[in-house]
Amino acid sequence: MSSSAPDRRLRADRARQAADVIRQQVVQRAYPDGVLPDERFLAAEFSASRNTIREALDLLREEGLIERVPGVGTVVVTEKYPHGLGRLMGLAETLHEHGEVTNDVRAAGPIKPPSSVARRLGLADGEPVVYVERLRRLGGLPLSLDLTYLPVDVGTPLLGEDLRNRDIFSLIEQTSGRRLGTAEVALEAVNADLHSAAVLEVPRGAALLVVERLSRFADGRPVDLEFIRMRGDRLTMRAECRRTP
Amino acid sequence: MSSSAPDRRLRADRARQAADVIRQQVVQRAYPDGVLPDERFLAAEFSASRNTIREALDLLREEGLIERVPGVGTVVVTEKYPHGLGRLMGLAETLHEHGEVTNDVRAAGPIKPPSSVARRLGLADGEPVVYVERLRRLGGLPLSLDLTYLPVDVGTPLLGEDLRNRDIFSLIEQTSGRRLGTAEVALEAVNADLHSAAVLEVPRGAALLVVERLSRFADGRPVDLEFIRMRGDRLTMRAECRRTP
Repeated sequence: MSSSAPDRRLRADRARQAADVIRQQVVQRAYPDGVLPDERFLAAEFSASRNTIREALDLLREEGLIERVPGVGTVVVTEKYPHGLGRLMGLAETLHEHGEVTNDVRAAGPIKPPSSVARRLGLADGEPVVYVERLRRLGGLPLSLDLTYLPVDVGTPLLGEDLRNRDIFSLIEQTSGRRLGTAEVALEAVNADLHSAAVLEVPRGAALLVVERLSRFADGRPVDLEFIRMRGDRLTMRAECRRTP
Repeated sequence: MSSSAPDRRLRADRARQAADVIRQQVVQRAYPDGVLPDERFLAAEFSASRNTIREALDLLREEGLIERVPGVGTVVVTEKYPHGLGRLMGLAETLHEHGEVTNDVRAAGPIKPPSSVARRLGLADGEPVVYVERLRRLGGLPLSLDLTYLPVDVGTPLLGEDLRNRDIFSLIEQTSGRRLGTAEVALEAVNADLHSAAVLEVPRGAALLVVERLSRFADGRPVDLEFIRMRGDRLTMRAECRRTP
């Protein structure tokens, strides 16, 4: 395909271009009261036709981000919360200004882990771990489903603690008396399978952020391996990066 | 919901738990020749029934990660490439050991940007920018669709350069004679709309990683605002984070 002038392209391409900018405006809460400017204004703003703007808004409506309300206009219907990737923080710590995080503890107890999990945690094959599974909610609404593997000495003391209302990070630091140091994070976009969708209360196939995170004590010992499914419509990950490491 | 012992849960929950671990093994290329161990082995490994393992493999098959090949077993069919989030690098730089990155330049030229884009780039309202839209491929297959806004003094010199085969980052540094410094990244999971899906050659609704990235020169001046749609089935983002910033 040969390159074309930006203003002589398919309407679908121009709609996507506008939608990306509007999506960021929505996520960054740039529209007062959560009401978008009207189509005429947006058309001028994006040097686009009203049909293009309508198509852009359709894309964001399909994502569940905005809705048309008769007599009001186009309004933001889903709040996305920022989650910092650069700093190792629990969800309740991160979102404390947005509301209360509570956890449905779906499972908690010792298991024999698969060998790849044992290896990641620096354990010998056959050593047990503590497994904790939580559905995490903000203001009652599901945000993420977290599957956590902990070495027995770190995990067992947590089983008597308030897993419903506390972050595992802060509980680990409290019960062990040691500070966490760094974590390695791998992040993917995955479509929700039928059952995970039901748990997270999203449509089957909804885009999820799937995170694998291995956290270490400050001395480098791996102590917390998590597999996290986050609702794509409710969380944005933020990071800073540098040209030279 | 009250907590239960990890080994007394729904099969769907146990299948998800196994699938998450196997997914990471696949992504990290832990299976020699891309062939998974057989169901009997995996059942023992995960202390699970063969039905649970079958359900776990079904989940990864639905994601397009693995396939059943008669006479061979379960094989990995999609390679996922790691993209470091901590270091500011172009795609060709990042993936140079995995193959050649080429770009279909879909649009390139000056436009009048929406005011939010002008603001992010530190420009006065009404100042033009250079817009570049590229479909980026690795070994011929689509990886990402990148929409890039550049200030005119930075972007114009790029229009005569080899945008088809070079990263914009390295072109900016070459033509400006200045080094990039840091970038702010916001990352979301979004379902592909019909038209973006067609461009990226994925099914409609496929999970995409959508990245907004604002890159700066070392002196802090913002010079490159990108909106990137990455195929979720082909890229994994990696990052390191610290407990104390």
